[in-house]
Amino acid sequence: MFGLIGGTGAVGVAAGVAGAKATTGDAGHDGSHSQVVGFFGDHQAGIATPAQDRLHFAAFDLSPVASREALVELLTEWTNAALKMTAGQDVGTGAVTGDPSAPPDDTGEALGLAAAKLTVTIGFGASLFTDAHGNDRFGIAGRRPEQLADLPAFAGDALKAEISGGDLCVQACADDPQVAVHAIRNLARIARGTASVRYSQLGFGRTSSTTVSQETPRNMMGFKDGTANLKADDTDSMNQHVWVQDGDGPDWMTGGSYLVSRRIRMLIEPWDSTPLTEQERVIGRTKGAGAPIGRTKEFDPVDLDAQGSDGAPLIDLKSHVRLAHPTTNNGATLLRRGYSFTDGTDDLGRLDAGLFFLAYQRDPRTQFVTIQNSLAGNANDVLNEYIQHVSSGLFACPPGVKAGEYVGQALFT
Amino acid sequence: MFGLIGGTGAVGVAAGVAGAKATTGDAGHDGSHSQVVGFFGDHQAGIATPAQDRLHFAAFDLSPVASREALVELLTEWTNAALKMTAGQDVGTGAVTGDPSAPPDDTGEALGLAAAKLTVTIGFGASLFTDAHGNDRFGIAGRRPEQLADLPAFAGDALKAEISGGDLCVQACADDPQVAVHAIRNLARIARGTASVRYSQLGFGRTSSTTVSQETPRNMMGFKDGTANLKADDTDSMNQHVWVQDGDGPDWMTGGSYLVSRRIRMLIEPWDSTPLTEQERVIGRTKGAGAPIGRTKEFDPVDLDAQGSDGAPLIDLKSHVRLAHPTTNNGATLLRRGYSFTDGTDDLGRLDAGLFFLAYQRDPRTQFVTIQNSLAGNANDVLNEYIQHVSSGLFACPPGVKAGEYVGQALFT
Repeated sequence: MFGLIGGTGAVGVAAGVAGAKATTGDAGHDGSHSQVVGFFGDHQAGIATPAQDRLHFAAFDLSPVASREALVELLTEWTNAALKMTAGQDVGTGAVTGDPSAPPDDTGEALGLAAAKLTVTIGFGASLFTDAHGNDRFGIAGRRPEQLADLPAFAGDALKAEISGGDLCVQACADDPQVAVHAIRNLARIARGTASVRYSQLGFGRTSSTTVSQETPRNMMGFKDGTANLKADDTDSMNQHVWVQDGDGPDWMTGGSYLVSRRIRMLIEPWDSTPLTEQERVIGRTKGAGAPIGRTKEFDPVDLDAQGSDGAPLIDLKSHVRLAHPTTNNGATLLRRGYSFTDGTDDLGRLDAGLFFLAYQRDPRTQFVTIQNSLAGNANDVLNEYIQHVSSGLFACPPGVKAGEYVGQALFT
Repeated sequence: MFGLIGGTGAVGVAAGVAGAKATTGDAGHDGSHSQVVGFFGDHQAGIATPAQDRLHFAAFDLSPVASREALVELLTEWTNAALKMTAGQDVGTGAVTGDPSAPPDDTGEALGLAAAKLTVTIGFGASLFTDAHGNDRFGIAGRRPEQLADLPAFAGDALKAEISGGDLCVQACADDPQVAVHAIRNLARIARGTASVRYSQLGFGRTSSTTVSQETPRNMMGFKDGTANLKADDTDSMNQHVWVQDGDGPDWMTGGSYLVSRRIRMLIEPWDSTPLTEQERVIGRTKGAGAPIGRTKEFDPVDLDAQGSDGAPLIDLKSHVRLAHPTTNNGATLLRRGYSFTDGTDDLGRLDAGLFFLAYQRDPRTQFVTIQNSLAGNANDVLNEYIQHVSSGLFACPPGVKAGEYVGQALFT
């Protein structure tokens, strides 16, 4: 009977795959095929990949003395390590092999765990191209894409600099939190001396279904989140809205995508004190089914013109669904890939919980910025009473690589 | 193919159980039997229950104006809510039913999720009996057990008051983090006006196997943690070391257990810079197999007298295994139920990671205190170089309840 427990969680992933239990002392952890997302391809994994259940995201800053060569070396080592970890293997010579009189290459906490669909996605912040003093530190300032323009300040922003920005970012997603944490930890370790973690964020309970077959999860407001998300298995849509196309900008980004990250704190206590009808008015959908107001099913079309018997719009003029809708934003849409977070309690005893919003797109200037301008500020989206954007990041995620290449190679050659 | 994803994580638990997929709009979330741990019994669930994969732990303080009646009312409401949530149901009238012009009774983020083996375990801190000013606020000071004596200061402690202690604690464990978070959030909401959260901690990747059939997970140091743990299915052992027996102290605690919580920060970076042989010497076990030094298998007996060919002890005199061993501590042992945590990065860019140690016992004075005195301080356990205890709690967890009772009822009657 106790065997059933295994099937539902991290440790059980390994136990549940026939014959995949790691041999003790084996340097590689469980890499059974069904748990592995391929690393190579036209695009980096972790964007169109069906959203896994757990996230560890980290932003890194380069050391002030790091050279261009050191940066290239770092990206090469990260690529090698990501390739191994996503295949369910330890980095380098492993956690328990290699020279025992030296620190092990791998930190070991993923020994015996499955690859758990780990993906590692790397992005470049604007500060990698031109630092705060305007210096072209790595000789790439001229290759900064126009799409990587700094995000404007939005009404209502409450950003903290120390958890915003970053020269580099790594998004590690997996179905096991220990696998995602292991990935970031080992990449941070590899970076030592060249780059260090600026901030990092764990997430659980993804808030978007990125494929037709994934059920829509609920966010910390209790609402289904991601119903109308772009579907990653819709190639045309992905080419139109997510993947950078030939001619969009510098060649090195063709096949890549731009990532916007926002840590959105939810003001849980006021939200929980709000009547159900008001919650549904604010969102523009029902809480149970997730249907547009006035309809009954989650995937019923959103009709922004629908009126009630009193002639008033069924979907409130300031509701989140209306203001975020492509119709309201010149057709702009995003591939959302967010995760809920709960980071304990703040010093007032309030739950520090919300959404770590992640969205991929072809051009943030016409996509995220357009939508966020529509939503931001108390004059607009009534949801703003209950949320606060406290961190922000924008990263150019280069295309995928072939064997023998490193992520971002075309930027440095 | 995408269906496979479901089997490895939170959302998949619901999807993986035949017919258990929640109906949209259904007020109760999925409570399929195999996902439910029974609430009633001689002991509170969550102690002998096979350790689930995720934790949300919270300590609460009573409001300065809360009365004895309010405290009893709170414990009654918590019991009712815990009963419902552990059965996979929403609290009260649910998240989407009840009066729509009022805030919903349930916050809704667990709608559609399985019960995920949720357990809710409640404990009473010393400050509930006698407050900081020596006042007997709730008329129970005379019933404080001797076993609930304040823990002594241990050498090397770096405790922060704001994340230590607490009048009440709730340990919510589940195989799905969103289910555990939902439980603490709804209990905190019920408490509003009577008690508020003092601090809370999320954990993942349990570090102890509490039954013979559970595999031993690895902690954030990469070592198997919990190999020699008490087994919760060994009744004699549980009665001897974990459950409070008749005559041990006040009757209201008979069948209960004492919980010690310690947030143990691991100094990851120095640890990761330590050679494998040194890591193994510090722990007293091999990193791969988890075998006692000099042996090859995890469950090989720990022989503290074993010597190498040079006549030196195989298991170092200051190793963690030796100093924590029952032989070294007058037979003292604990039921450990800890969880790993990673709370992002501190302001120096170091991973804020470690072990949220939880241990149940019959008498902390002869168990945790004895063992920790053996371990604490730099003169002893060499592991202290790599860890720091930053929070501490001690709670009396009363016995289980029958239908119609509330947790801790015997203390107030």
